[in-house]
Amino acid sequence: MPPFYHLIVTDRHLKVPIARQISNQIVNLIRDGVIVPGAALPATRSLADLIKTNRKTVVRAYDDLLSQDWIEALPRRGYRVKQDLPVLKPRSFQPPNKFAAVTEIPPAVAANEDIYALIRTTVPEHEIIVNDGMPDHRLTPVHDMLRELRRQADNISLARSMYYLDDGGAPTLKAATASFINSSRGLNVNDRNVVITRGAQMAIFLAVSLFVKPGDHVVVTDPNYIFADESFLHAGAIINRVSVDAEGMVVEELEDILQQRKIKMLYIAPHHHHPTTVTMSAERRLKLLQLINKYDFYVIEDDYDYDFHHENRPILPLAASGHGGKIIYVGSYGKLVGPTVRMGFLIASPEVVNQVNRLKRLIDLKGDTLMEYVIADMIVSGALDRHIKNTNKIYAQRRKLFSHLLTEYLDDELHFEPPQGGLALWVKLAARHDLKQVMRRAGNNGLHLLGSFCLDPDNPHGNSIRLGFASLSDEEIAQVVEVLRTVLK
Amino acid sequence: MPPFYHLIVTDRHLKVPIARQISNQIVNLIRDGVIVPGAALPATRSLADLIKTNRKTVVRAYDDLLSQDWIEALPRRGYRVKQDLPVLKPRSFQPPNKFAAVTEIPPAVAANEDIYALIRTTVPEHEIIVNDGMPDHRLTPVHDMLRELRRQADNISLARSMYYLDDGGAPTLKAATASFINSSRGLNVNDRNVVITRGAQMAIFLAVSLFVKPGDHVVVTDPNYIFADESFLHAGAIINRVSVDAEGMVVEELEDILQQRKIKMLYIAPHHHHPTTVTMSAERRLKLLQLINKYDFYVIEDDYDYDFHHENRPILPLAASGHGGKIIYVGSYGKLVGPTVRMGFLIASPEVVNQVNRLKRLIDLKGDTLMEYVIADMIVSGALDRHIKNTNKIYAQRRKLFSHLLTEYLDDELHFEPPQGGLALWVKLAARHDLKQVMRRAGNNGLHLLGSFCLDPDNPHGNSIRLGFASLSDEEIAQVVEVLRTVLK
Repeated sequence: MPPFYHLIVTDRHLKVPIARQISNQIVNLIRDGVIVPGAALPATRSLADLIKTNRKTVVRAYDDLLSQDWIEALPRRGYRVKQDLPVLKPRSFQPPNKFAAVTEIPPAVAANEDIYALIRTTVPEHEIIVNDGMPDHRLTPVHDMLRELRRQADNISLARSMYYLDDGGAPTLKAATASFINSSRGLNVNDRNVVITRGAQMAIFLAVSLFVKPGDHVVVTDPNYIFADESFLHAGAIINRVSVDAEGMVVEELEDILQQRKIKMLYIAPHHHHPTTVTMSAERRLKLLQLINKYDFYVIEDDYDYDFHHENRPILPLAASGHGGKIIYVGSYGKLVGPTVRMGFLIASPEVVNQVNRLKRLIDLKGDTLMEYVIADMIVSGALDRHIKNTNKIYAQRRKLFSHLLTEYLDDELHFEPPQGGLALWVKLAARHDLKQVMRRAGNNGLHLLGSFCLDPDNPHGNSIRLGFASLSDEEIAQVVEVLRTVLK
Repeated sequence: MPPFYHLIVTDRHLKVPIARQISNQIVNLIRDGVIVPGAALPATRSLADLIKTNRKTVVRAYDDLLSQDWIEALPRRGYRVKQDLPVLKPRSFQPPNKFAAVTEIPPAVAANEDIYALIRTTVPEHEIIVNDGMPDHRLTPVHDMLRELRRQADNISLARSMYYLDDGGAPTLKAATASFINSSRGLNVNDRNVVITRGAQMAIFLAVSLFVKPGDHVVVTDPNYIFADESFLHAGAIINRVSVDAEGMVVEELEDILQQRKIKMLYIAPHHHHPTTVTMSAERRLKLLQLINKYDFYVIEDDYDYDFHHENRPILPLAASGHGGKIIYVGSYGKLVGPTVRMGFLIASPEVVNQVNRLKRLIDLKGDTLMEYVIADMIVSGALDRHIKNTNKIYAQRRKLFSHLLTEYLDDELHFEPPQGGLALWVKLAARHDLKQVMRRAGNNGLHLLGSFCLDPDNPHGNSIRLGFASLSDEEIAQVVEVLRTVLK
């Protein structure tokens, strides 16, 4: 029985008799779906006690409801709401038409509806998912992490720290992150430069929300990571797009835009561009650094895939060079440890970090402190470095196998440039294949292509999709190629 | 050694000799702090290989650096950066003054700096924290939750679900939340009405960000939950404040404002108002519902403390009545389970939920799915209900003891109205005591008062602070009163 006491309020000053006030309110509760058809009503004496009136008044109210056919009296079982009422819809959360419950969807976002529809599909366990380029959940050191979680669960100062506000993450993880970033990426930062976030996406959202105001111009590549686009659109930004070729973002196009108008922010993934996987050439990187130092604009450098490099050495982030505090560097622990870990980081000047922390608190008063201690322990003990090294080897093999099979069997149907690293290939279908149809037919064959894609026929990167290979075993890779052969031939 | 290959880029087309290009860039790396004093440099042959030049060029570059006194040659150990360089500051994240790295802090937020300074204090383990009204971490069923975590860690479909996007939380927890809300709060919702968030704060932020645009007028109480205020300020809202008296928000003041101008949103905690703990009277609630149905504005109903009620029955949320989809109802699982659990929920019409999910994805692509399964299991198994019942008993006893001791020993020094529920008292000091001084002196005596407070001498709620009693054992409660006696007498 729903606890509907207190929903029935009587007022002696009204002209309506108390009994009728009660019966009217019960009708409304039934109409609103709070009391459902078939539900028992309280005995008259209980309801009288609950709402502090006398029993006779409740009896009159129930008689009223009986005569209106809302309820029925069952011998020895009291009153209940009739079963055969016309189907009642819950009304409380139904907006009447005159009230605009939905904000407008910006057109650029509405165009992504197709993508959303696909990536939200639920996939049966025996079917294969090719994702956007995520690590293999089977390689996540879950049980090591659980052991550490268990150990930290009894850590009293950790538990007590939940009584304070968050200042950008657990101090132990902020310090460990600074040391991890310095030794792996050649930066020179300390804990005051670090914010721990729920994944790299939150880091992007925080940076965009903090600096970009409605009407500000920003620059992204074409195509671009869609959730960066959407973060800018949410902030009310005007998006300018520059091309991506085999050397990464075409910096000359950025310079043209900078000469024409004030730009507030650039979003770029120079290492393995998303979605195309292209790594920016050294010349372009130097040129970009010059522009950053010449013009006043912020840069979000998204280095989501830094630690996964195959043959070549990694290219140091832009943030490792002098940039006058203009670069906000973001990355992901989830990519390193496993997809169930939702944690990332943002590296910036202390002034920016203070503002980011302030905004982050509005979104998330406190992070997942327990898990933050676990990740800090993995960094300090060296377990994270070992895990990266081990998984990198496996992922390199998978990339080799996948590239080999695609070239061997599907060379006429699709094309890709072997990326220098990362966990996905960017595959362009031959013009005679329609990507959307291919995705649909693959789905019907138990192969779910859920990576980012570009359909735009006018874009040199059109008819292309990211195929994440890292989460696929060798056997699964062979099956993927097999299904693609069926679908493409 | 930092991996500074690729930071050194040579260009044959420049007039500067290659060796000088190399030495200049190494100087810059030292100046930028990427290469630190005392660091070893690569052997000439290795560096030549790394940057694809010949060894003699590198030798010339190193000679250059030797002659400029940047590096030194150690017999048999190669080259290293000199130890006694003038102290070099890391430059990369230092903004030059001309570049505004910091956005403006709105004045209303700047006024809260005092509060921030206090609540971020770190407290030694043997000292006592009186927080804003959080549950006791010692009562969190941590080990039951770890057992369930371990069980879910091997759940393959859970792990694979990390490869899809999030649609407002794990389906199992969305359904369990709907059923929990319906049975405890008299709502009539299903999983399509539910968004799982990282704490109630994220729910507030999402609702505010979605609907409030710069220049929109909103209404809050005075005083108000500061992070709701800050969320509105971040969105660029103009805040209108209405008073709170012994019956809660003064609805007549709200009506006056509604008659004067278009209001976009109201933020209200009708059950246990934050910070004052006052519960809104039935008349005021009815009147507020009438206004909601008469005027077009959204309402965030924050019911952070619903499940903690002492003597009286809980008052059903406004959201349980007909409101045309205008109420966005938010609550917290962290309050119910324990402070280490950072999870909350938002309940709204399906149209609003769809938009909230879209925005939530920009902030947090995916929730903490593992923990979401654990909480869902606690709801379905009945463990959550039992936990609430058990802790509620303990918290009611603590409230009784704390109220009793405060009245017994400090009746002349402070005043509070016993709240109908919740986990904190709202205590007003006698006018002769200065709250800020009291907090400072208590801190010096090992008692850290970290609850929300109101200093404003012109506010009837001025010179008051929230004293959270739920996280204190009986012994700690006695100690708190003891220290307060010392400080206040």
